[in-house]
Amino acid sequence: MTKAAKAGANAVVGQSGGPTGVINASLVGVIEEAKKHREIAKLYGAVHAVAGIVKDEFIDLKKLSAKTLKAVAGSTSSALGSSRDKPDAEYCARILDAFKRRNVRYFFYIGGNDSANTCYIINKVAGEAGYELRAFHIPKTIDNDLLVTDHCPGYGTAAKFEACALMGDDLDNRALPGIKINCVMGRNAGFLTAATALGKQRDDDGPHLIYMPEKPVSMDKFIGDVDGVYKKLGRCIVCVSEGICDTDGVVWTKKITDTGEKDAHGNIQLSGTGALADFLAAQVKTMLKVNRVRADTFGYLQRSFAGLQSSVDFKEARQCGIMAVKFAMKETSGSTGLTTSGSVAIKRLSDKPYKIELFRTELKNVAEKTKSMPAEFINSQGNGVTDAFVKYALPLTGGLPKTEYLGSYPRV
Amino acid sequence: MTKAAKAGANAVVGQSGGPTGVINASLVGVIEEAKKHREIAKLYGAVHAVAGIVKDEFIDLKKLSAKTLKAVAGSTSSALGSSRDKPDAEYCARILDAFKRRNVRYFFYIGGNDSANTCYIINKVAGEAGYELRAFHIPKTIDNDLLVTDHCPGYGTAAKFEACALMGDDLDNRALPGIKINCVMGRNAGFLTAATALGKQRDDDGPHLIYMPEKPVSMDKFIGDVDGVYKKLGRCIVCVSEGICDTDGVVWTKKITDTGEKDAHGNIQLSGTGALADFLAAQVKTMLKVNRVRADTFGYLQRSFAGLQSSVDFKEARQCGIMAVKFAMKETSGSTGLTTSGSVAIKRLSDKPYKIELFRTELKNVAEKTKSMPAEFINSQGNGVTDAFVKYALPLTGGLPKTEYLGSYPRV
Repeated sequence: MTKAAKAGANAVVGQSGGPTGVINASLVGVIEEAKKHREIAKLYGAVHAVAGIVKDEFIDLKKLSAKTLKAVAGSTSSALGSSRDKPDAEYCARILDAFKRRNVRYFFYIGGNDSANTCYIINKVAGEAGYELRAFHIPKTIDNDLLVTDHCPGYGTAAKFEACALMGDDLDNRALPGIKINCVMGRNAGFLTAATALGKQRDDDGPHLIYMPEKPVSMDKFIGDVDGVYKKLGRCIVCVSEGICDTDGVVWTKKITDTGEKDAHGNIQLSGTGALADFLAAQVKTMLKVNRVRADTFGYLQRSFAGLQSSVDFKEARQCGIMAVKFAMKETSGSTGLTTSGSVAIKRLSDKPYKIELFRTELKNVAEKTKSMPAEFINSQGNGVTDAFVKYALPLTGGLPKTEYLGSYPRV
Repeated sequence: MTKAAKAGANAVVGQSGGPTGVINASLVGVIEEAKKHREIAKLYGAVHAVAGIVKDEFIDLKKLSAKTLKAVAGSTSSALGSSRDKPDAEYCARILDAFKRRNVRYFFYIGGNDSANTCYIINKVAGEAGYELRAFHIPKTIDNDLLVTDHCPGYGTAAKFEACALMGDDLDNRALPGIKINCVMGRNAGFLTAATALGKQRDDDGPHLIYMPEKPVSMDKFIGDVDGVYKKLGRCIVCVSEGICDTDGVVWTKKITDTGEKDAHGNIQLSGTGALADFLAAQVKTMLKVNRVRADTFGYLQRSFAGLQSSVDFKEARQCGIMAVKFAMKETSGSTGLTTSGSVAIKRLSDKPYKIELFRTELKNVAEKTKSMPAEFINSQGNGVTDAFVKYALPLTGGLPKTEYLGSYPRV
């Protein structure tokens, strides 16, 4: 960066998209590291992400006490507020104006692929305007669907939630047997739904069937699978992704709306409604004539439940924030504009012991696109996960509680 | 107890009704204490409660290792399996036959008011048949609706779940503002829905409106309340009990079914469906023309989520199991049949420091009837809780995490 740009340079950090359990740990990582660098005069927190930047809504983050930072890091959701705005070039030009007014030379944006894209556009717009800016994207998403990185901060904590939910649900279903259908978030990626399997400890532990968006399934196959498990075990726990689709490629939730089988409750969106799970429960009840069929939609608890952070996820999220600042501070010869920008990514070094390192990747590698579950993580029947998936995802939960069920002990 | 009855006497313990997060702690309390008493030759665990007794399905609990017991106590749900059977006199006669076959002289039954009633009937039937039996009920329910006892084991853990859920939900709703409706379990008692307020730390923290079954509410009043909060704060979080009813006394869930506004998904039960929350969200959306309205139904996670026990609840649940055995071992002059039976109850000695003691109450005091939220726990508008409720319920959660939100900090 030129001397002129460096003088009195400030930084902005924002949090975008759907919150996670550790997005604040990344924020605190940015703050803690920024505090160490005199090159960053002020670190502004953008309230409600890009929306706050264009409205000039900032708070002073370097002033926060260690005690406050600790509480922030431990809190779920986005402490600065979030936004669903997807800035185009015009919006980014307004962001650049806001940056110029406050001499912002560093921009840290914590979010998903859309946020990486925002970073990319802003950096491009800045470069074209000859304004020196370093823009870094810090990954977060419970969906785990970002490219390049081994996994996304936020996923491990949400995966822990799913695993704990299903460990309890399995014990509940053992106590009062029946068919249970759970609907899980994750958009078009099955990682989160797959995580419901991570707490399985006994051969017949639920979930017994897992349906992910990557493997289309017909209603006939679905009902047949449930029937098979129920006949064998006298109970069946099913986890379905909100994004599962039929063999014709149409998302089930959309089908419910289109076929007149929608409920009378108004618009149906993927999350924030129990329609899909209720619909599936009714189908199972009608077609299999089973009395006790229950449906749960895990909803927003999956991303926001307080006090359940994965220790591994927390540490990594914070480290990603720290590294973004470190990357931004690094002088590479002739680095201006686009050349010193990027997204922080995780590389897995080993599974046992679990070990990772962080690296910088280009924004365009992460922007816009999304990742799906690799084929080797889904079983051949398309209704469960493989050992390879468990090996991949289990360390991210930071460990799970053990459970015990006595009902299957020998009779006396 | 007569010498003849005492010789080679055995005990049976069972777990009934809907599971809780600490019903296994009570079971382990019974096992640990029974191990200390040679008067109990064998302690049989009835698999699936009364259903297992009449089918002679028992496991030997004194043989379990300390390691297994620790894992059982830490597991949610009923480790012996549960049952929804409600035994009448004929059923209880069959239970008595089963007891006679195995020389069972002590019966411990962990459950709600129905289970207390089962104990009562069995004890009566035994007394009439001249069979010496000591039957003790150990309270459990997430609904907290049992009489006599200050509160019920199981409630504190479920209350912790509600509080953590809403602490996260509030932060999520701050990050991405809108109207959020949460549907909470609890049947006809509002205690669990009220517990959603326990994590509130700032004046404008959600939930902003809480509707409990004890206070009927019209749709007009409900919509008006939501509108008022939304206009003031730009967001609104509402928690409604699954059992809320209209001003004409009819439960809302029933109304949805009866008015043709039911969904097309089949039968609607109070729990295990998202119908009520979805219906309310659609009403709010239509009547207030607010775009972002979301609904969650917390479902079975409320009673089964793994790894989230309240330390206070855990300790008390275990202690209730221990005391049941102690009460049963106690010889009172001439105690036979009904005279040495009872239900374990909790008496609160002080709020600060929180202190309780356990005592014995008669089975008939607890059997069948249920308790509602006292009037002083509900605010005058019927849409929230009072400080008296928080003082009552907060200690039962065993403490809650602190949260921090920066979006309301002063701008720079």
